[in-house]
Amino acid sequence: MHTPTYKSHISSVFNAELEDVRQRVLAMGGLVEQQIVDATRALTEVDAELAAEVIANDEKVNTLEVSIDDECSRILARRQPTASDLRLVYAVIKTITDLERMGDEAEKVARMAADLSEQERGIAPLVEVGHLSRHVSQMVRDALDAFARMDAESALACAHEDVNIDREYEALMRQCITFMMEDPRTIRRVLDVIWAVRALERIGDHARNICEYVIYFVKGKDVRHISLEAMKKEVQEDDE
Amino acid sequence: MHTPTYKSHISSVFNAELEDVRQRVLAMGGLVEQQIVDATRALTEVDAELAAEVIANDEKVNTLEVSIDDECSRILARRQPTASDLRLVYAVIKTITDLERMGDEAEKVARMAADLSEQERGIAPLVEVGHLSRHVSQMVRDALDAFARMDAESALACAHEDVNIDREYEALMRQCITFMMEDPRTIRRVLDVIWAVRALERIGDHARNICEYVIYFVKGKDVRHISLEAMKKEVQEDDE
Repeated sequence: MHTPTYKSHISSVFNAELEDVRQRVLAMGGLVEQQIVDATRALTEVDAELAAEVIANDEKVNTLEVSIDDECSRILARRQPTASDLRLVYAVIKTITDLERMGDEAEKVARMAADLSEQERGIAPLVEVGHLSRHVSQMVRDALDAFARMDAESALACAHEDVNIDREYEALMRQCITFMMEDPRTIRRVLDVIWAVRALERIGDHARNICEYVIYFVKGKDVRHISLEAMKKEVQEDDE
Repeated sequence: MHTPTYKSHISSVFNAELEDVRQRVLAMGGLVEQQIVDATRALTEVDAELAAEVIANDEKVNTLEVSIDDECSRILARRQPTASDLRLVYAVIKTITDLERMGDEAEKVARMAADLSEQERGIAPLVEVGHLSRHVSQMVRDALDAFARMDAESALACAHEDVNIDREYEALMRQCITFMMEDPRTIRRVLDVIWAVRALERIGDHARNICEYVIYFVKGKDVRHISLEAMKKEVQEDDE
């Protein structure tokens, strides 16, 4: 894994600052990833203690967001970056918003796990939720990896994964509805699962957003709100 | 309504740029507000045509986000703002992310309206959804008004409204669950309503975020992730 090369700055302090902020985003990303894994384990194993831990840890994610934002605005004020340095700071500002919201979604999953642990055990597609969660966690890991290496090709591949996650999400949702219709006593319980599944799907969306910022940094092109096909074109355009 | 006074710049072009970006955010906000109103009307009146309009209009919201982001990064590169100018640009960058996501939520409400229009009519608490929506739209209007005037006190009052919206949301959710348990044939239909209600509640969260950025701009303090009590202290601290 290589570190993205920044333009050579007269100030090596500036280089160090950019590298520091990048490392902090990766640390925040690692924490969020762990929160997602733990929240899902709390849900699938109906573990109230682990759920409580995840809920408490969300504050760490929030604190990281605030401190990285603060560092970015100091860099903007003092270093007045331009070109790719500015794009890096811009990508960081956007990325941490998504990471923070991923953290919120992980917390929601944990809240649903806590809620479920207080109810009578019953039928719910928890094994499938585990599959979806592993898939989503992998996507988050891939997005962070693309960010770490500032690799537009990996970011594009990762963004594509969102389609599969949406498909899994739809299937799980249909299954949940079937459970509820077959046995209305499960409605409350299955609704908790539905909220958790929805939160996982949202995490996938946020991971895709991060991939878009990586492409923006590398290619200097804003690829939000366009199709995956159009995104692919933008990524491959200058490589030929 | 007064326009926030920026520091006097040697470059009057810079002043004009800042005012322009501020106006564009307000225009984007106005469009999002209309999308919320229309999406809810499509839902409560089960109007498939209006729903389709809202879905189509989301692209306009997205286009505005991309163009304002672009303008902000150009201002950062060319004008290298500091102090309150930088805070304004920072607040704009954050605000448009929330506005764009409010637009996505409005689109979701419209999608649920379109979905409902294809199902048999049945029982659902649509009148109450209308109430919640009016409340949420008012909150969005208040947040944008606080942004327009860069008024921290109004922003604080508006952020407080989120508590009432969450309470209404909880009540509506309980009502939806009761409907489903009493008549499982309504599950699919009520789930559409639940998604719409959830989307409206999320819009309230985004409006609160905008209020936080206004306070950040005016007071230079980051008030995210703190209690409303602590937020109040920050807003009133220097006013005494």
